[in-house]
Amino acid sequence: MIHVGVIGYGYWGPNLVRNFFECPATRVRMVSDLNPERLEAVTRRYPGVVTTTDYKQLLRDPEIDAVAISTPVSTHFGLAMEALEAGKHVLVEKPMTASSEQARRLIEEAERRHLVLMVDHTFVYTGAVRKIRELIDQGSLGELYYYDSTRVNLGLFQHDVDVIWDLAVHDLSIMEYLLPEFPVAVSATGIGHINGAAENIAYVTAFYESSLIAHLNVNWLSPVKVRRTLLGGSRQMIVYDDMESSEKVKLYDKGITVKNGPESLYKLLVGYRSGDMYCPQLDVTEALRIEAQHFAECIETGQAPLTDGYAGLRVVSVLEAATQSMKERGKSISLQGSANLRKICA
Amino acid sequence: MIHVGVIGYGYWGPNLVRNFFECPATRVRMVSDLNPERLEAVTRRYPGVVTTTDYKQLLRDPEIDAVAISTPVSTHFGLAMEALEAGKHVLVEKPMTASSEQARRLIEEAERRHLVLMVDHTFVYTGAVRKIRELIDQGSLGELYYYDSTRVNLGLFQHDVDVIWDLAVHDLSIMEYLLPEFPVAVSATGIGHINGAAENIAYVTAFYESSLIAHLNVNWLSPVKVRRTLLGGSRQMIVYDDMESSEKVKLYDKGITVKNGPESLYKLLVGYRSGDMYCPQLDVTEALRIEAQHFAECIETGQAPLTDGYAGLRVVSVLEAATQSMKERGKSISLQGSANLRKICA
Amino acid sequence: MIHVGVIGYGYWGPNLVRNFFECPATRVRMVSDLNPERLEAVTRRYPGVVTTTDYKQLLRDPEIDAVAISTPVSTHFGLAMEALEAGKHVLVEKPMTASSEQARRLIEEAERRHLVLMVDHTFVYTGAVRKIRELIDQGSLGELYYYDSTRVNLGLFQHDVDVIWDLAVHDLSIMEYLLPEFPVAVSATGIGHINGAAENIAYVTAFYESSLIAHLNVNWLSPVKVRRTLLGGSRQMIVYDDMESSEKVKLYDKGITVKNGPESLYKLLVGYRSGDMYCPQLDVTEALRIEAQHFAECIETGQAPLTDGYAGLRVVSVLEAATQSMKERGKSISLQGSANLRKICA
Amino acid sequence: MIHVGVIGYGYWGPNLVRNFFECPATRVRMVSDLNPERLEAVTRRYPGVVTTTDYKQLLRDPEIDAVAISTPVSTHFGLAMEALEAGKHVLVEKPMTASSEQARRLIEEAERRHLVLMVDHTFVYTGAVRKIRELIDQGSLGELYYYDSTRVNLGLFQHDVDVIWDLAVHDLSIMEYLLPEFPVAVSATGIGHINGAAENIAYVTAFYESSLIAHLNVNWLSPVKVRRTLLGGSRQMIVYDDMESSEKVKLYDKGITVKNGPESLYKLLVGYRSGDMYCPQLDVTEALRIEAQHFAECIETGQAPLTDGYAGLRVVSVLEAATQSMKERGKSISLQGSANLRKICA
Repeated sequence: MIHVGVIGYGYWGPNLVRNFFECPATRVRMVSDLNPERLEAVTRRYPGVVTTTDYKQLLRDPEIDAVAISTPVSTHFGLAMEALEAGKHVLVEKPMTASSEQARRLIEEAERRHLVLMVDHTFVYTGAVRKIRELIDQGSLGELYYYDSTRVNLGLFQHDVDVIWDLAVHDLSIMEYLLPEFPVAVSATGIGHINGAAENIAYVTAFYESSLIAHLNVNWLSPVKVRRTLLGGSRQMIVYDDMESSEKVKLYDKGITVKNGPESLYKLLVGYRSGDMYCPQLDVTEALRIEAQHFAECIETGQAPLTDGYAGLRVVSVLEAATQSMKERGKSISLQGSANLRKICA
Repeated sequence: MIHVGVIGYGYWGPNLVRNFFECPATRVRMVSDLNPERLEAVTRRYPGVVTTTDYKQLLRDPEIDAVAISTPVSTHFGLAMEALEAGKHVLVEKPMTASSEQARRLIEEAERRHLVLMVDHTFVYTGAVRKIRELIDQGSLGELYYYDSTRVNLGLFQHDVDVIWDLAVHDLSIMEYLLPEFPVAVSATGIGHINGAAENIAYVTAFYESSLIAHLNVNWLSPVKVRRTLLGGSRQMIVYDDMESSEKVKLYDKGITVKNGPESLYKLLVGYRSGDMYCPQLDVTEALRIEAQHFAECIETGQAPLTDGYAGLRVVSVLEAATQSMKERGKSISLQGSANLRKICA
Repeated sequence: MIHVGVIGYGYWGPNLVRNFFECPATRVRMVSDLNPERLEAVTRRYPGVVTTTDYKQLLRDPEIDAVAISTPVSTHFGLAMEALEAGKHVLVEKPMTASSEQARRLIEEAERRHLVLMVDHTFVYTGAVRKIRELIDQGSLGELYYYDSTRVNLGLFQHDVDVIWDLAVHDLSIMEYLLPEFPVAVSATGIGHINGAAENIAYVTAFYESSLIAHLNVNWLSPVKVRRTLLGGSRQMIVYDDMESSEKVKLYDKGITVKNGPESLYKLLVGYRSGDMYCPQLDVTEALRIEAQHFAECIETGQAPLTDGYAGLRVVSVLEAATQSMKERGKSISLQGSANLRKICA
Repeated sequence: MIHVGVIGYGYWGPNLVRNFFECPATRVRMVSDLNPERLEAVTRRYPGVVTTTDYKQLLRDPEIDAVAISTPVSTHFGLAMEALEAGKHVLVEKPMTASSEQARRLIEEAERRHLVLMVDHTFVYTGAVRKIRELIDQGSLGELYYYDSTRVNLGLFQHDVDVIWDLAVHDLSIMEYLLPEFPVAVSATGIGHINGAAENIAYVTAFYESSLIAHLNVNWLSPVKVRRTLLGGSRQMIVYDDMESSEKVKLYDKGITVKNGPESLYKLLVGYRSGDMYCPQLDVTEALRIEAQHFAECIETGQAPLTDGYAGLRVVSVLEAATQSMKERGKSISLQGSANLRKICA
C-alpha cells in the first residue's frame, strides 16, 4: 500500500485524489492547498484525509511514500525537488517543469536517490492512445507520414504559460509515446489577443529526420471544442476524435500508390486507394486510474514509469523550442542536441 | 449576349461550360482541349458547340468576345496573354498565374486594351462566403482575431503545383475578399511524400499589422474530407463548414471579457461569454452561375470585377511567399512590398 | 432545512443522494437498500449518513421530513403509501406507480394528509425542456403539429417493466409538461426478443383532439444511442437532441404555406418556407439539483409541485393504455375518460 | 441495343433519361410529357431525342422496345397496360400501381405476352443496400430482430398519394429485398395537416411470423432531412444512414446474451456485448445506371428482373394494408392472404 500526499487541489487535483482513493494499491493520506476553501471541499468529501495549507507539513510526514503535484507550472520544479529531497517518490503534473534545465536536475536528483519520478502525461494511459500505439506497433499504418492535431476551445486562459504549454503539451506527450522519432526542429507561430498576456493561439510544426511531419493547432479562443488528430501512414490512416462519446478511433484503409511507367518521365501517376473503415472497441477505464496503479507498481518494483522524467524532459524541450520559434515568427529552431535525450540522460 | 470560348475541358472546364450555357447573358461558342476524347464529351452533351484541339482557332474567331481558361497553372499566363492580345476579355482559373510578375503583366495588358480580366475565385461567389462578408461588414464579429482553415482530403495530387497552390489558394481568395487587411508576412511549413514531387501537406500562417492572424492547413493525404474555417472576433465567432449540406455558417455569440481590478496587478481576470448560436439561411445559387453573370455584366458595363486581376495578383503574391517560406522551414517572408498592391497597380 | 431519507441506492439513488447532499435546502439523513454492499458505497462516500437494510427504520425516524423512493416500479405504491402514512412528504421515481388506480390512491392519501407528493419527472427540470416550453409559450412554434421522439440504446433490459414503462415514460413526462392537450387515444406496437420477458422494442402513437400527433420509438436493442425529439408547428420547428454536448435545442424557421387559387380546385399548392436556424443558450444546472430545491420549497410553502401526483397519474394512464394497445397489435385504446384527469382529481 | 421511350419528364424522368442515355446497352428514342416546357428541357439537353406531348405516339413507334413510366401513381396502371398491349417491355416507377388488383393485372398481361415488367425500386440497386444484403446473407447479423427506418424531410407534399405511398414505399421495397419474410399484418397511424389532403405524417409497423418487427417513420413536415435505418440481429447490428456522404453502412458487433442460472428462476440475466464497428467500402455506381443495365439484360435474356412485378405487387399490398390501418387508427390489418404472393402468382 502506497501512501500518497497530494499538493494542489485546484482543477486537476480532485481527479488525482479521487483516483488514488479508489485505486486499491494507494491511499490518500494528506492534501495541501493554499486555499482553505479548497481544503474544506476535501474534508466534506473525504473526511478521513488530513488537510493543510502548508505543503511542508506533507513533505515532513514519514508515513507518506509518494507525492503528487498538481500546481501551476512555475512551481513544479521547486516542489518536486523538495519532495525528492524529502525522500518521496514524485508524480508531477504536465508540463513537467518550466524549463528543460529544471527537468534535467529533477531527473538527476531522482536517480541519485533511487526514487520514482513520473510525469502525468494522462493521455498516454487512455484506451484510445494505447489502441493507436498498438495499431502502429502492428504495422497497420505502414511508414508514418504525419501527425496532425487540432485542440481548440473557449478558455481557460492560463496565467503563467502560453497556449502551447497548456494545450500542445497534450499532443507532445502523445507524440512522445506514439512516434518512433524525436523531432529535429520546430517551427511555431502564434498570437496573443490580451495586452501583456501570453499567446492564446499557436501553430506548431515539428520536423523529423524521416518523411514524418507533425502539426499542432491550439487555440483558447475557439467557439467550438475540437479534439481531433489525424495520423497518416503509407498503408492506413487514423482519425482520433476525442469528442466522440464512442467511436473515438477510426482506422481508414486509404492511401495512395505511386506508379512507374513511361508516362512518369513527364508526370506522376498517383493512384488513390479507398477501402473499409474499422473502429476498434476501446478500453474505457479512466486513464488516471490506470496511471495511479502504474505509479504504485513502479514504486513497489523499481521499474521506470512509461512516462518517466526523460519523457517529461523531451516534451519540455520541444515546448521550449516552440516558444522560441514563435517569438521569431516561425523561424525553425533545431532540436538536434535534444534528439538523443534518451541516451544522454539514461 | 456575350459569346464565350472555353480553353480546357478537364476537371473544372465542364462546370464553366455548363454555367455559361445556362446563364441567359452568355453563350458558349467554342471549346478547345488537347484531348479529342474530352471534345467528344462536349459534342455529346452540347451538339451545337464547336470544338477544336487548337486553342488558336478559338482566339481567331471574331464572334468570340470572351475566353475562359481552365488549364494547368503553368499555362495560364501564356494563354491569357494571347487572349488579351487577340482582344478577348479573360476569365482565368485560380491561381491566376504561376508568379506575381506574370500577374502584373496580365493586369497591365488588360488595362492597356480596356479588357476585362477576371480571376475565377469561385468561393467568393458562394452564398456562404457572401453571408460571412455581410456579417463582418455589419460588425457582428467585432475586431477580427483569426481566420483558421482546414482543407484536407485524399488526392488529387497535382503535377505542376504543390498543395498550397492547389488548396490554400481557395482560402487565400476567401481571405482576400473577407479580411480588411493584406498580410505583412507569411510563414509556411510542409512536406512531400513522393520522391521528386511537390509538397502534399502544408501549413501556412499569415501575419497582419493588427492582432489578426490567419492559418491554413492543407493536405492531399487525409483519410477524411474536411472543409472547415473558424473566424474569431472580439464580439462573435463563425464556424463555416462547407461539408455540411445545410447549416454551413454558424455564428456563435461567444467570446472573452478582460476585467481590470486590484487583482489584475498580479494576474489576468478573463471572463468567458457564451450565448446563443445562429445559423443564417444561405443563398444556394451555384457560385459559378453568379460568376458567369457577373463576368458578362463587367464586359457590358466596363466595371471592375469583384475578383479582378489585382485580387488574383495579391493571392499569387502570398502563394509565392508561402512556397519560399516552406523551402526555408517556416522562416517568415515579408510581404511589406506587396501590402499596397491595390495602390501600386491601380 | 428538510431532512431526507432515500429508499433505494441502485442506479438512480446515488444521483438523488448526491443532489440532496449538495442542495443547501436539504440534508440526507438516512439511506436504505436491501443490498449491504450498496450501503457500504454510501458510507464510503458519505460517512455521516445513516444506512439501513430496513426501510421501516427510515420511515420511523421522526427527524426525517421527506422520503425519496428510487426502487423498482412494482414497489413504488407500497413504499410511497407507507411513507405517506408515516407522515412523510414523498418524491417517487417515475413511473409513479404500476397502475393508474395506485396513482389515484396515493394522490388521495397525500391530499388527506396535506403532504407533498411529487414525481421525479427529471427531464421537466432540464434547461433544454424548460427552454422548449418557453418557446412554445411564446408562440414560436405556432399551432403544434407533432411531437416525434426516438429514445433507443443497448440495454438496460428491465425485469419488471417493458420498454414503454422504462423509456417512453421519459417522453410522456416531457409531453405532459410541454403539450397543451392530453391524448384522447393511444396505439402501440412492439415485440420482445427474450422468451418470457417483456417487450424490448415498442412504438407508441398518441392521438389528440386537435391536429396534433405524438409518436415514441423506444428500443433496448439499438447499437447506437439516440435521444432525439422533433417538435413541429405551423410556424417553426424544433429539433431537441439530448446527445449533443452543446446545441441540444435548435429552432428552425421552416414550414409550409398552403395557397388558394384557381388551380387549387384540382390540386394543392403547398409552398415551403426555409429560414434561419437558432440555437439558444441553455441553463446547464443539473436537473436533479433544481428538482431537489423545488421539492424542498414545495414542502416549506405548501405549493403543488410542477410534477405532482396528477402529472404522474396522467403519465401512468397513457402507459397503461399503451401496454394494452401493444397486446392488441396497435388497436387504438381510448383515453377519453382520462382526458380530464386534471379536473376530476383536483 | 434497347430503344427506350420515357413517359413523364417531371421530377424523376430526367434521371431515367440521363441513365438510359449513358448506359451502353440502351438508347433513348423518345420522351413524352404533357407539359411542353418540360419537353423543351429535353431538347435543349438531348437534341437528338424526339419529344411529344402524346404518349400514344411513343407507344405506336415500332422502333421502341421498352417504355419507362415516371408519371403520377394514379396513371401507372393505365399507361403500363397500354404499353404492354402495344408489345413494349415496361419499367414503371414505384409504387407500381395504385392498388394490388391493378398490379396483378399487369403481371398477368406481361406474362401472357412474355414481356419484361420491372418496377423501379431504385434503392435495391444502391451499393449500400446490396452490401447490407450481402452481410445478411453471410449471417453477419444472425437472426433478424428488427428493421427500423426514419425517412423524414420538409416536402414534397404529393397530390395524389399520402406520405406512406410516397416515402414508406422506399423502405418497403428495401425490406422486400433484404428481409427473408413477408409481413403477416400491418398497423399504421398518421395525420394530415392540410384540410382535405392526405396524411403527411405516418408511422407503420409490420409484424412477421418470426420475432422480426419492422417500423417506418415517414414525415413531409420535418425541419431536418433524416434517412436512417437500424437493422438489429442476434449477432450484430447495422446502422444505414443515407445522409452520410461516405460511411453510409456501419456494422456494430453489439448485442445481448441471455444467461440461464439459478437466479433466472426469478429474474433475467441479460449481458451486453459491445465490440468493434466496421464500415465497409461501398460501390458508388449510381443505382439507376445499374438498374438501366439490368433492365436491358432482362429484355435481352428473358430473365426475371430482381424487382419484378411480384416485388411491386407485394409492396403495393403492404401499402394498401397500411393506409387501411391508418384509417382505423392503428388497427392491425392482416396480410395473411398476401403472404404467399410469390407462390400464387409465380
